[in-house]
Amino acid sequence: MELFFTTQVNGKVAILSGEEAAHCVRVMRHKVGDTIFVTDGAGNLYRCTVREIPSAVKGGKVSKKQKIADIVECEILENSVGVGGRSYHLTMAVCPTKNIDRYEWFLEKATEFGIDALYPIISDHSIRTTVKKERLEAIALSAIKQSLKSYLPEIKETVSVLDFIAEFAESEDTLKLIAYCEPGDKKSIRARLSESKILREGSCPKVAIMIGPEGDFSDREIEAAQNAGFKPVTLGESRLRVETAAIAGVSEIYFSCCQGFSSIAAMEPNQ
Amino acid sequence: MELFFTTQVNGKVAILSGEEAAHCVRVMRHKVGDTIFVTDGAGNLYRCTVREIPSAVKGGKVSKKQKIADIVECEILENSVGVGGRSYHLTMAVCPTKNIDRYEWFLEKATEFGIDALYPIISDHSIRTTVKKERLEAIALSAIKQSLKSYLPEIKETVSVLDFIAEFAESEDTLKLIAYCEPGDKKSIRARLSESKILREGSCPKVAIMIGPEGDFSDREIEAAQNAGFKPVTLGESRLRVETAAIAGVSEIYFSCCQGFSSIAAMEPNQ
Repeated sequence: MELFFTTQVNGKVAILSGEEAAHCVRVMRHKVGDTIFVTDGAGNLYRCTVREIPSAVKGGKVSKKQKIADIVECEILENSVGVGGRSYHLTMAVCPTKNIDRYEWFLEKATEFGIDALYPIISDHSIRTTVKKERLEAIALSAIKQSLKSYLPEIKETVSVLDFIAEFAESEDTLKLIAYCEPGDKKSIRARLSESKILREGSCPKVAIMIGPEGDFSDREIEAAQNAGFKPVTLGESRLRVETAAIAGVSEIYFSCCQGFSSIAAMEPNQ
Repeated sequence: MELFFTTQVNGKVAILSGEEAAHCVRVMRHKVGDTIFVTDGAGNLYRCTVREIPSAVKGGKVSKKQKIADIVECEILENSVGVGGRSYHLTMAVCPTKNIDRYEWFLEKATEFGIDALYPIISDHSIRTTVKKERLEAIALSAIKQSLKSYLPEIKETVSVLDFIAEFAESEDTLKLIAYCEPGDKKSIRARLSESKILREGSCPKVAIMIGPEGDFSDREIEAAQNAGFKPVTLGESRLRVETAAIAGVSEIYFSCCQGFSSIAAMEPNQ
């Protein structure tokens, strides 16, 4: 099953444009009358029929030199809401890796598991201080299409670690975690979930996890995070790369917070 | 800290050869008298002093055209046993992915977390039926050096899914799990760990996990696995790629079986 993406949805009409339109017509060779699936990345997955394709590419018979499809107009037949949705809300704040491929890999994997937002955060110890937002957005988009999800993770603007902490300082309904290598009063992510009430209270537990750069967070960043209510977590004895630590965090929340996992019951404190 | 690898250890002498010797002398520019760290990949991490370097490369001053170091002779000063060791034994049996980069990535990440053996298994539905064993061994080696582990995962010969199942049919002390997409009597990995006794009985729980190819295991493979005592597990609602499913399994065992994680206590059935 092929999934297309658009934010141009108006009533019963969905419009594919740009690369999505070109992919639909030139690569997939879709014609008027074909049934295709379209998501808006906001939880809607539409079953559509192709209603109109610009004449220049009608039937998809175009040479590479010709103008590619501007738009593909689709009629929405059915809307499945919440496909690929989750029973938790996860924000990852991860320092970009020196080798950006590793960061992009993390985003692809995190999107397969399911995350809601990624903040590229810049630490006092960061080697890389910039990321290409559009590139990350394209990777997230391709990952939800591959994993048939109707929720597109939001790629946030790059911010400093201290600004990110300040932004989350007030959010009391979120379990805020920070992973770092320096010694500290740390517990496992599962233990932090167990001691918090979010798995029992909210129908959709909210979690935010901070993962530092190759050189770890600075002391002032660790202190600021804890002052803002971020709880220190350990990721175990192994020395994990940044992207591995980040995916470990995503995986722990995925398996701990997904509904229907007996692990949730198993994590309730014994009584 | 740089870690070198050799299996040539005799009493108080460790010999680096081939690329390890060349890397030590030509890249790291080590000289006689330098202190270096060497692992045998079997749980030993030696602090050594460089005792002799072939004259051709003494001092590391060689042009690329010259013969590279044949050997570097080291005197073992100290042996730290079990560095980067684990409190569990994990065998992963994973079908090679169509795009081998994704398989190699999985192996690198799995080695960072810590696994003991990887079986490339070929399914009735496998698209890729061969892997380069030497290449996988090189990736595992580079990963233990990067993550400072003294245990090198064993890359097994490629076998068919049915042969792998037959090999493990008799191993009663291992919790054997198979992840597949077809409907079945599945539970989460944590639930399988909870219902088994391995976390409470053995000091070093043994687990084996089978992960299928892009097209999933065949019905006869799933049946054979269950007849051999492999218990079906679910990896949740998300549609995970092969390598993502495999790393999810490694991460679950890592966080569930590592000693010192309160998650273990939390996973004991309530009483």
